[in-house]
Amino acid sequence: MSGALGREAAVLDAADVLRAKRAEFALADGTVYLDGNSLGALPGAVAGRLADVIGREWGQLGIRSWTESGWWSAPERVGDRIGGLVGAAPGQIVVGDSTSVNVFKAVVAAVRIARERAPGRDEVLVDAATFPTDGYVAQSAARMTGCRVRAVPAADLAGEAGPRTAAVLVNHVDYRTGRLHDLPAVTAAAHTAGALVVADLCHSAGALPVELDAHGVDFAVGCTYKYLNGGPGSPAYLYVRHELQPRFDSPLPGWNSHADPFAMSPAYTPADGAARGRVGTPEILSLLALDTALDVWDGVALADVRAKSLALTDFFLRCVEEYVPEGRVESVTPAAHAERGSQVALRCAGAGAVMEELIRRGVVGDFRPPDVLRFGFTPLYTGFADAERAARVLAEVLGP
Amino acid sequence: MSGALGREAAVLDAADVLRAKRAEFALADGTVYLDGNSLGALPGAVAGRLADVIGREWGQLGIRSWTESGWWSAPERVGDRIGGLVGAAPGQIVVGDSTSVNVFKAVVAAVRIARERAPGRDEVLVDAATFPTDGYVAQSAARMTGCRVRAVPAADLAGEAGPRTAAVLVNHVDYRTGRLHDLPAVTAAAHTAGALVVADLCHSAGALPVELDAHGVDFAVGCTYKYLNGGPGSPAYLYVRHELQPRFDSPLPGWNSHADPFAMSPAYTPADGAARGRVGTPEILSLLALDTALDVWDGVALADVRAKSLALTDFFLRCVEEYVPEGRVESVTPAAHAERGSQVALRCAGAGAVMEELIRRGVVGDFRPPDVLRFGFTPLYTGFADAERAARVLAEVLGP
Repeated sequence: MSGALGREAAVLDAADVLRAKRAEFALADGTVYLDGNSLGALPGAVAGRLADVIGREWGQLGIRSWTESGWWSAPERVGDRIGGLVGAAPGQIVVGDSTSVNVFKAVVAAVRIARERAPGRDEVLVDAATFPTDGYVAQSAARMTGCRVRAVPAADLAGEAGPRTAAVLVNHVDYRTGRLHDLPAVTAAAHTAGALVVADLCHSAGALPVELDAHGVDFAVGCTYKYLNGGPGSPAYLYVRHELQPRFDSPLPGWNSHADPFAMSPAYTPADGAARGRVGTPEILSLLALDTALDVWDGVALADVRAKSLALTDFFLRCVEEYVPEGRVESVTPAAHAERGSQVALRCAGAGAVMEELIRRGVVGDFRPPDVLRFGFTPLYTGFADAERAARVLAEVLGP
Repeated sequence: MSGALGREAAVLDAADVLRAKRAEFALADGTVYLDGNSLGALPGAVAGRLADVIGREWGQLGIRSWTESGWWSAPERVGDRIGGLVGAAPGQIVVGDSTSVNVFKAVVAAVRIARERAPGRDEVLVDAATFPTDGYVAQSAARMTGCRVRAVPAADLAGEAGPRTAAVLVNHVDYRTGRLHDLPAVTAAAHTAGALVVADLCHSAGALPVELDAHGVDFAVGCTYKYLNGGPGSPAYLYVRHELQPRFDSPLPGWNSHADPFAMSPAYTPADGAARGRVGTPEILSLLALDTALDVWDGVALADVRAKSLALTDFFLRCVEEYVPEGRVESVTPAAHAERGSQVALRCAGAGAVMEELIRRGVVGDFRPPDVLRFGFTPLYTGFADAERAARVLAEVLGP
């Protein structure tokens, strides 16, 4: 870190308004962790919380913790905390299940609502480059509701929504390229066409401001183990816009979503509000790890996160351009800020082997087939010196 | 614990072949915990395992733990461990999602297979006294596959399966009364009728021997937080009989069930084997707590568990009869061993308030509406002195 870019990194890190946040994470020594877009780093407070949840809440209080320790209401309570990060007023988000399961709930429910308005609608539009699970699950949801799936490039979703479209499923940020899609425009076009929007926020929540309420998004889903640092496989969430909640007809009406679950009634009466998105008993250990992980957001302005994210990705791209021999990598992440998430994706020959060597040298990103190196920039714990070192090591791996 | 029954309890505890197991659990001092049929007690080793999973596997290894710490394959690996407790040879059980979500996968898949054989089948038979979520989810599965649900008493399921029946959903043990249903008979009758069976093992797995393979059960689901002590909301499991796996057509085809998940293909090709039952990313903290919780079964013979379970429930019923004034409670749990699970359910006027007072006095069971006191007997950590004390305190609460 001796050159001009190294010195610049030090200046930028010193001026970083978020720099104190790094101390709230337990980061591995000697490693530059640029895979927070796959598994976020460990917030240090999680270990103590889980020790208490296990030893005292489970071990000592046992079953009483469902009420006394707030386990039962945690899906809505933690959901509201996530709401603060994605522009959702309280009462619209519930945490639980995986993103895939929540995509199923949302797409089926969106189709059902669209058909209440216009029974003939039979098309689910999906982003052709979607993260695979969204596409697979949309196909199943379509099959089970008598629809067909039509995949179009994300940029065309707004233009392609038409009179047969029931639901439009869009990834807010493309998992491979890091491209940020125009969620307000897709939502507006879908609404004009009479369709509903389901947004997948896996690669945007916690990385940039998301304004679900302001844009009138209908349904949203997302995982919590990337930029929200909830831990491996931490539970996903489901947003159902307030006005749609009375018509939200879930295909997974488990007992946790009953209006009076402990009445144990043989007849299903759905709960009002976000709880209608629940299914079975939530995985409490994973859920409460997430709860504590969200504490790192206290006092954080998402505008600062976004500004630092763009500065980090800009700076990393400059370092790559400066250090890496011409022609060895090509960025597939948009240069325009308005089209960029919080990762840099570099196309590179032999990307799989290159990433293995990077990891061996302490720079952890990941590989996405066929030829993409992904580097996630997580503003709460990644600094400019990390970005500089990553580019420098990449140049060393790729050789002169 | 001075009377004859107290002395008898001491003798029985001294002779208990499972008595050493109790030390493997962290039990609350001064409490008789008879709610292990709702939330199993904490196996002491879980705290240390989770501390390591959080601090080292997540905090230090990060994303590498998906391979290096075995996270990715844990759903099948832990599934095989559960297989050893429910009579399932390896490769047929996968852990993940909630029981409710697994009921949905199983019922939809069962209907699809039944219809491959006979397209006109349009009926899902369910136990009329089923745990509510099974009924709600079966209703949704039926609606989405063009079937109707018909609820009949569990004892009539075998006789009612007919030419229109696609799937029969049966609770192995009734959650309210503790009645053990005849799973082999229901399975045989369903097969004779050309239907498939889905068994819910929530109240039997870990409480008594279950022989899924031997009885030819088609699909089974169960939770792991009751007799398997996996912790609050620990993940459920799905059993798909080996011969049916190639035709298992899941309604929730998430990326974790793809034959080559990291190829990130837009086309879905289902994995072979138990992995086909996966959906999204598993909740690793909850899953690995379960993994360690299962260590308490090492060296345990289920025949010993069953023998002690019946002895405990017999003894508790004797104590109740001896201590509790005539007419104040009535057992709704079958007297015949062949029809009894591992709980005792007592009908009692004002059962809700009675249970509150029992808990206040250190005897933890639970209340199920409208008028049932439930006491779960978990042979690995419950002793005869516990049963005697519970009955004695119940008599005190109910008064002379």
